[in-house]
Amino acid sequence: MAAPSLDERAAATAKLVLAGDVRASARLMRDLDDNRPGAVEAMRLLYPHTGRAYVLGITGNPGAGKSTVVDALIDLYRKQGKRVGVVAVDPSSPFSGGAILGDRIRMQRHATDDGVFIRSLATRGHLGGLSRSTSDVAAVLDAMGFDVVIIETVGVGQDEVDVVSQAETAVVVTVPGLGDEIQAIKAGILEIADVLVVNKSDREGADRTVRDLTHMLELRPHEAEPVEIVRSVATNGKGIDELAAACERHRLRGDRAPEAEGTVTPRRRRRAFAQVREHVFDTLRRAIDEALESRGDLVDRVALRGLDPYSAADELIQAITSVPSLR
Amino acid sequence: MAAPSLDERAAATAKLVLAGDVRASARLMRDLDDNRPGAVEAMRLLYPHTGRAYVLGITGNPGAGKSTVVDALIDLYRKQGKRVGVVAVDPSSPFSGGAILGDRIRMQRHATDDGVFIRSLATRGHLGGLSRSTSDVAAVLDAMGFDVVIIETVGVGQDEVDVVSQAETAVVVTVPGLGDEIQAIKAGILEIADVLVVNKSDREGADRTVRDLTHMLELRPHEAEPVEIVRSVATNGKGIDELAAACERHRLRGDRAPEAEGTVTPRRRRRAFAQVREHVFDTLRRAIDEALESRGDLVDRVALRGLDPYSAADELIQAITSVPSLR
Repeated sequence: MAAPSLDERAAATAKLVLAGDVRASARLMRDLDDNRPGAVEAMRLLYPHTGRAYVLGITGNPGAGKSTVVDALIDLYRKQGKRVGVVAVDPSSPFSGGAILGDRIRMQRHATDDGVFIRSLATRGHLGGLSRSTSDVAAVLDAMGFDVVIIETVGVGQDEVDVVSQAETAVVVTVPGLGDEIQAIKAGILEIADVLVVNKSDREGADRTVRDLTHMLELRPHEAEPVEIVRSVATNGKGIDELAAACERHRLRGDRAPEAEGTVTPRRRRRAFAQVREHVFDTLRRAIDEALESRGDLVDRVALRGLDPYSAADELIQAITSVPSLR
Repeated sequence: MAAPSLDERAAATAKLVLAGDVRASARLMRDLDDNRPGAVEAMRLLYPHTGRAYVLGITGNPGAGKSTVVDALIDLYRKQGKRVGVVAVDPSSPFSGGAILGDRIRMQRHATDDGVFIRSLATRGHLGGLSRSTSDVAAVLDAMGFDVVIIETVGVGQDEVDVVSQAETAVVVTVPGLGDEIQAIKAGILEIADVLVVNKSDREGADRTVRDLTHMLELRPHEAEPVEIVRSVATNGKGIDELAAACERHRLRGDRAPEAEGTVTPRRRRRAFAQVREHVFDTLRRAIDEALESRGDLVDRVALRGLDPYSAADELIQAITSVPSLR
């Protein structure tokens, strides 16, 4: 019997993913990470079946309790009978905290629940590896039939915020009483927030934080979308109902509103733009790295200052762009 | 009189920068940031004149007092009659801290000193804008004739560490008694450290931190380069002499050693590789963004799920790579 072709294998994978097969789906996610042959072909087949899941993005200050909020949301959605997929985006920072590990381990208590699938994604250094993996993994979870897909960022970089801003609803979590030493929320983040959460709101200063956020929201342009502020104490589940309700209200106002059907909303355009861009980059990045590896002579000449890096870059670009197809 | 050509303007800029002209140099840095015509041409002319400055990179935990260490080093180098350029790499994170701003303002006390030039670089979101700007700005400072160029990272991401690891000497700053909540140093960072600083060493636990770091260093492979550990209290200048001396010892062991002359050392290769890669990326990024902007129809089709992002990416790559030259 002949070995199955790439197309046949991709079709088989897509079929299994659509049937919710966990093992095949996990393998596809890994294959996408490793850029194995057939992975992108499977994604092409899955794409028309995505768009059903509600994609929720959660970011916020370090120490704000993002993971605890996600944990409480999983509980709530499970009680509503919804199946939940989670993509935890974890930057491969050279500095790490014990708190992060603790959160990760705690969240694993859902690991035995068939209705929950958690996938941690380490960011692969720089140059945009992050967004591509995240949207791919979210798409696989969507195709698997999860009702809700939560994208949680552990880090606080611009990359993570970009990813979260592509979700249908972007939730930003903060806490009262952030001192000078701990990082404080900046106005820029309000641009992406659809729902704001003041977590640990049993702490002193919660009223003030809510007031400050309200004030910051009032300073936005008149035509800006409404943003709800929710108080929570995620450790005991307080306020999580309200958070889910606020998210649902945003969802129904947003791309799921009847009037949004078949139209290119700003969020849809932003997401599509980012996705296409990341895929182009990913392909070109590999082409560049291959070209660089094969032109060690060029790098060595730059290292010895016999050639400037600008001219070396030009030469490489010529080499890459003369290739008829990069894929 | 005819307007000067691009080459003439680049030559004029290069001449001014080599003469140490602050205004022309600042303009070139800005033009590089904005990708103005002629900026890269000027850099090509300057490149053969770079490589004289001692490039020192400083990174470390948030709250470790990096900026205070840099401040104290500037003082010391100035007393030795050396001119110091500083590139402060500040990630444009949506979360920022009061401490960072305070440091920045404090460091500005050198602003009236002609022998000090401080340039803050905000990272421009994702996809590798960081490294290119940093190495370009460091090269301009080098060409201007600064004896020492300090690259200081405010952030703690992988990008920043990559940048610092390209310096001649990479200094990693930490502090005693990091709890669970604050981020702790990870083994990976030791791979890039040439000199380790335990700052705020008058605090309890300094001995233990030094012992822990020594132990971590002992676990490295036998052939690993020696790494000195220095204690400092940067706020009163204690230990800064020792730090500078440790850096100097590393410098003389490193690429400036007589036996390293004319050879491609691992650090030189790493730096050249990173520089060329960033320039290639920067050029391709612009080509991609232009292509995406001009193919709004493609993005809209993806937004409405009439086309999958993988096929859209393929189409764009074909368009980009059929362009004869990207620059």
